[in-house]
Amino acid sequence: MRRVYLDHTATTPLHPQVFEAMIPYLKEKFGNPQSLHFVGQEALNAIEEARERVAGLIKAQPEEIYFTSSGSESNNFALKGFALAHRSRGNHIVLSAIEHQSILHSAKNLEKIGYTFSYVPVDEYGMVDPEEVKKVLTKETILVSIMLANGEVGTIEPVAEIAKVCRNHDVLFHTDGVAAVGNIGVDVTKLEVDSLSLAGNQFYGPKGCAALYIKKGARIFSFIDGGIQEKGRRAGTENVAGIVGLGKASEIAKDILEQRIEKVKPLRDKLIQRLPQKVEHVRITGHPERRLPHQTSFCIEFVEGEAMLLNLDMQGVAASSGSACTSRELKASHVLLAMGINHATAQGSILFSLIEETTLEDIDYLLEVFPPIIDRLRKMSPLYTKYLEEKEK
Amino acid sequence: MRRVYLDHTATTPLHPQVFEAMIPYLKEKFGNPQSLHFVGQEALNAIEEARERVAGLIKAQPEEIYFTSSGSESNNFALKGFALAHRSRGNHIVLSAIEHQSILHSAKNLEKIGYTFSYVPVDEYGMVDPEEVKKVLTKETILVSIMLANGEVGTIEPVAEIAKVCRNHDVLFHTDGVAAVGNIGVDVTKLEVDSLSLAGNQFYGPKGCAALYIKKGARIFSFIDGGIQEKGRRAGTENVAGIVGLGKASEIAKDILEQRIEKVKPLRDKLIQRLPQKVEHVRITGHPERRLPHQTSFCIEFVEGEAMLLNLDMQGVAASSGSACTSRELKASHVLLAMGINHATAQGSILFSLIEETTLEDIDYLLEVFPPIIDRLRKMSPLYTKYLEEKEK
Repeated sequence: MRRVYLDHTATTPLHPQVFEAMIPYLKEKFGNPQSLHFVGQEALNAIEEARERVAGLIKAQPEEIYFTSSGSESNNFALKGFALAHRSRGNHIVLSAIEHQSILHSAKNLEKIGYTFSYVPVDEYGMVDPEEVKKVLTKETILVSIMLANGEVGTIEPVAEIAKVCRNHDVLFHTDGVAAVGNIGVDVTKLEVDSLSLAGNQFYGPKGCAALYIKKGARIFSFIDGGIQEKGRRAGTENVAGIVGLGKASEIAKDILEQRIEKVKPLRDKLIQRLPQKVEHVRITGHPERRLPHQTSFCIEFVEGEAMLLNLDMQGVAASSGSACTSRELKASHVLLAMGINHATAQGSILFSLIEETTLEDIDYLLEVFPPIIDRLRKMSPLYTKYLEEKEK
Repeated sequence: MRRVYLDHTATTPLHPQVFEAMIPYLKEKFGNPQSLHFVGQEALNAIEEARERVAGLIKAQPEEIYFTSSGSESNNFALKGFALAHRSRGNHIVLSAIEHQSILHSAKNLEKIGYTFSYVPVDEYGMVDPEEVKKVLTKETILVSIMLANGEVGTIEPVAEIAKVCRNHDVLFHTDGVAAVGNIGVDVTKLEVDSLSLAGNQFYGPKGCAALYIKKGARIFSFIDGGIQEKGRRAGTENVAGIVGLGKASEIAKDILEQRIEKVKPLRDKLIQRLPQKVEHVRITGHPERRLPHQTSFCIEFVEGEAMLLNLDMQGVAASSGSACTSRELKASHVLLAMGINHATAQGSILFSLIEETTLEDIDYLLEVFPPIIDRLRKMSPLYTKYLEEKEK
C-alpha cells in the first residue's frame, strides 16, 4: 500500500542531515556540557554552536535563545515566567481565543493563583484584530500572548502590529511561533516581541528539543530551578544530541526555506483547489492569503474527523483533525468554534499538512482515495440522510 | 594520549543497545504518539513499552511513570506539584541539607510564594537520621523530600525508614533517585515513597529523557500544562527516541545490574584503598559501607578542585568536583559543607565515578598520573608552604 504522510503539523520527520549531525552526540561525544574537561567542553561547544544557528534562523542574538524540551514547555515558561516576574505591576493577561492549549491551560492554572485573563476574538478567518487587543488592555495588564501562526487553520496573525500596541502600553508580548518558525520567514527584530516559542519537530528537527527566544533584558522567572544551565533559567542536563539537531534543522531552514515553500505551496494549492471540486459541502478554513504555505484544513459536513482519519489511515494516508495535542481527545476544535463555525461542522475537521518529501503523486493519490471515503461515511450518517430528505422536499 | 572517563556522575555514555533501539525512532518511525494513524500508533506503542520497562526497573506500575526531560525537571515537578496541590493542608516542607540544587532552588522559589522549609542535618558521612526528620514535622508539614543516594559522596540514605515516618504523620514523601536508579537496586514497593525521580543519563540512557514515578492516587499538579500527553500532567510532544532509549536502558539495567556492580565495585575499592597511600592529606568522603558502588570522592588538602580537574584533563582523565550541575560554578560543595568539612578542604574535592567500560588499566593509569599532579599543585600552594613551615617548627 502507498504511504502518504500529510501530518507535518503533528511532527515532521528528521532531515537526514539533522540525523547525521546528532549521531556523534549519541555515541563518542557523549559529555555533559557542564563538565570541566575535554568531553564536556566538546558538548558545550556543540550546544553553543546550535544556539547560534537557532538564533540565526529568527535573527536573534545567541544569548537570547533558551533550550527547552517542547514548544509546550516554551509556552509554559514564557507565560508563567513573565506572569510571576511582573506580578507587582499587575495581574491581567490577554490571550486570543485560538491559542495553543499549552497557553490556554497555563492560563487556567494562573487563574487559580490570582491572575485574570481576557480573550480577544478572531474573525471568520481566525485573524486577531490589533484594535481588539488595544480595547481590552487595562492598567493591570502585564502580558499579551498571541500566536504567530495557527497550526490548525494556518492563519498568520498580525504579530508585529500587536507587538507595537503592547509596546505603546508598556505591556510584555509573547508569541507562540511553534507552527511558524522554520516554515515561514521569522525575524524577531521586525516582530519586536519580548519572547517567541519554537519547536524543532515542526521543521525537520528532533522531537524533545525546542527553544524560547527571550529578548535581552526582559525579566522572567526560571521555569526549571536547579543548576546553572541556560544561565540558570532552565536547569537540567542538556539534551545535547537534540540541541545539536535543532541547531542543524535551523541552519537548513534558514538556507532553503524559500525552496521548501516553492515546493510545497503549489501542491497545497492544488489540494485547496481540487478537493472542493471532488467533495460536496466542504469549507476551507483559515485566511485565504495570510496563511502557512504547507497546510490546509477543511470542514467536511456530515462526517466526523475521527472517522475520516481512520479511513484515510486504512488507505495509507496520515492526516490529522484539530491540533496534534488534542487529536486523541476527540473534542471539536476550540479554534474552529472561535472562528464561528458551528459544532457539527467543526466535528468534520480534517487537516492536511505537507512535508518537503510530499510529491504531486501523493496529492493525486489523496484526491483519488478521499472522495469515496466521504461518500461511504455520509451514507452512514443520519444527519446526511436527513439533509437529503429535506433537500428533496 | 590515553583517555580515561571517570565522570559517570556527570553523564554515562549511551549503551550500544540503547543507541540501536533509538535509531528507528529518529528515522522511519518518526510519528507523534498523539496522532490517530499508523505512524502515530507505532510511536505510541513504543513509548508505552518504554513505560513498562522503566516501571519494571523500580517495580512500579507502568501508569505510575511520567516521562520528563531531566532529573531536575522530575524534581521540580514533584516538589512544586505536591506543594501546590496540597497547599490547603499546610505550607511546611522538609528537606535535607544535601539535596540536589533542583530541589534546593525549587524550595527558594516556593518560599517566595509562602511556603516554609526545614532542613535536616546530615552526619559526617552525609547520612540523614530519620529521627531528625520526625523532630521537625509540624501540623503544617505537607511534604518531605530526601534523596535516595547522593551522587557526589555516594551515601545511600535510609529512605524506607524516612518514608515510614512520613506515612505515620500523613505527610507526602518524595525521593530524588537520580543518582541511585540504575546503579543500585531500587524497589518502590519496599521504599513506599509517594514519588521518585530518575534520569536515563545516569545509567547508560540518553540525556534529555528522565522520569518521575508518582504513586497511584497521589494528588499532584501538572508541571507543563497543555495537551493530554502523560495523562495531562506533563504536556508537550513526547521525545519518542529519548523515551525509547530510557526504556531500553532500564531493561538492560534490570537485567545486568548485579554484573555491573560486581565489575565496577572492586575497581572503585582499589581506588579508595590505593589513592590515600599514594597521596598525603586525603580524606575519603561519604559513608564507608552504605554507598553507591561506582564512585568515590576525596577531599585533597592544599589543592583546589578546578586545578586538579584541568591537570587531569591534560593527562586524558575526565573527572569532576562537586556536583555536575554546579561544576562550572566553582563553588565549594554544599554537600561537603553540610557534612562538617571546612571550606578550604571542601575546595579540594575530587570525584571519580566509574562506568561499565572502566578497566583495571584505567584505574592504574589514574593512580600513576594523579600523585605527580598533586605534588606539582601543592608546590604552588601558599597554604601548603605555610603548613610545611609550621610542621618544621
